[in-house]
Amino acid sequence: MRESFRGDLARLGEQLAEMCGMAAHSMRQASRALLTADLQLAEEVLAADALLDRARQSCEEHAQSLLALQAPVARDLRMILAAVYSAEKIERMGDLAAHIADTARFTHPEHVVPAEFEQVFTELGEIAAAMADRVGEFTLGGAGSGFVELNETDQAVDALHAQVMSSITGTGWAHGVRSATSLALIARFYERFADQAVSVAKRLDFAETGRTPTGEV
Amino acid sequence: MRESFRGDLARLGEQLAEMCGMAAHSMRQASRALLTADLQLAEEVLAADALLDRARQSCEEHAQSLLALQAPVARDLRMILAAVYSAEKIERMGDLAAHIADTARFTHPEHVVPAEFEQVFTELGEIAAAMADRVGEFTLGGAGSGFVELNETDQAVDALHAQVMSSITGTGWAHGVRSATSLALIARFYERFADQAVSVAKRLDFAETGRTPTGEV
Repeated sequence: MRESFRGDLARLGEQLAEMCGMAAHSMRQASRALLTADLQLAEEVLAADALLDRARQSCEEHAQSLLALQAPVARDLRMILAAVYSAEKIERMGDLAAHIADTARFTHPEHVVPAEFEQVFTELGEIAAAMADRVGEFTLGGAGSGFVELNETDQAVDALHAQVMSSITGTGWAHGVRSATSLALIARFYERFADQAVSVAKRLDFAETGRTPTGEV
Repeated sequence: MRESFRGDLARLGEQLAEMCGMAAHSMRQASRALLTADLQLAEEVLAADALLDRARQSCEEHAQSLLALQAPVARDLRMILAAVYSAEKIERMGDLAAHIADTARFTHPEHVVPAEFEQVFTELGEIAAAMADRVGEFTLGGAGSGFVELNETDQAVDALHAQVMSSITGTGWAHGVRSATSLALIARFYERFADQAVSVAKRLDFAETGRTPTGEV
């Protein structure tokens, strides 16, 4: 029975890792759709969001059945609660990628991102997607402290976000109000995506050790 | 033992209700700080956020101890998981109120909200705070379906949010780019606050009935 329970817990980690892979994929596609004004790609991201919602539902049902049938305590209980928490956060990462895609769709055939901002949004997309992939590795266990690593990466995202905001609200902005508000909201979607990744890593660390790692998300 | 467990579950609902009261209070104060450019009030909201974080921690520890000690199943298990989920969402509501207060602080002594938008942001603040209060009532149980009611109220928030966004991006905007991006982000904080309230109500309904109520959040 305990062996089978170990297997169930491992399967829960795999479900989360799959969700992370889906969120990373959506973020990459959403970023590409945004930067190339690709309507079809944007619509693919929006359609894929329902799959991530279902994966979250399935993960949560699995966790709930383990709670009901195995009555776990201590670290096992923390791991299962962390899975429920993480599934919700990863689903939210998918929502944020979908918001980016939706902006691309709404603005199509115009480009949302002015040429001189393509580089910074490309970077934001790559870093954010890589963070989702990295969290997926941590959900499988045994990869050390995800929080410390992801919290560091998150600071790069925060710096890029601050750079965008400062350009928008600075005196040299030449793209009008509509473009400024779109970019401000989109930059926030990237930043929030990264925040969710950090909070999943933080929660997994807590589940592993029973201690909340210090540091802000 | 079962009687005592009923008492524990009721106490968990009370903890959530207290958190909702704190989130509602923060939202009212943050809105007032925003609309009157009141620096001291903004700082009070920011300071109070740590109390809500602690209340969430306490609620979650209580839920975790009930899971470990009582090994609940079915509706009881759903209620405890809903409490963990809700505590996180209500903490997030506090974060969003704090973001509004932070914008007021950052912009002080200037007013963020132009005079002709005071009415719409006053309404957003009142409705959002009332939603938090209403969710608090539902956490105590026996108040019918919170989701249907709050989802309806949320549509009023969405309409006000859309009205703000359409004014900002319309041709008549006369307050510059910095003001537009601030208002777009703040309007989103109100809208997200309301979304969290709806998602708590939805989760409480699910815990009560075992069926997910239909409708988008």
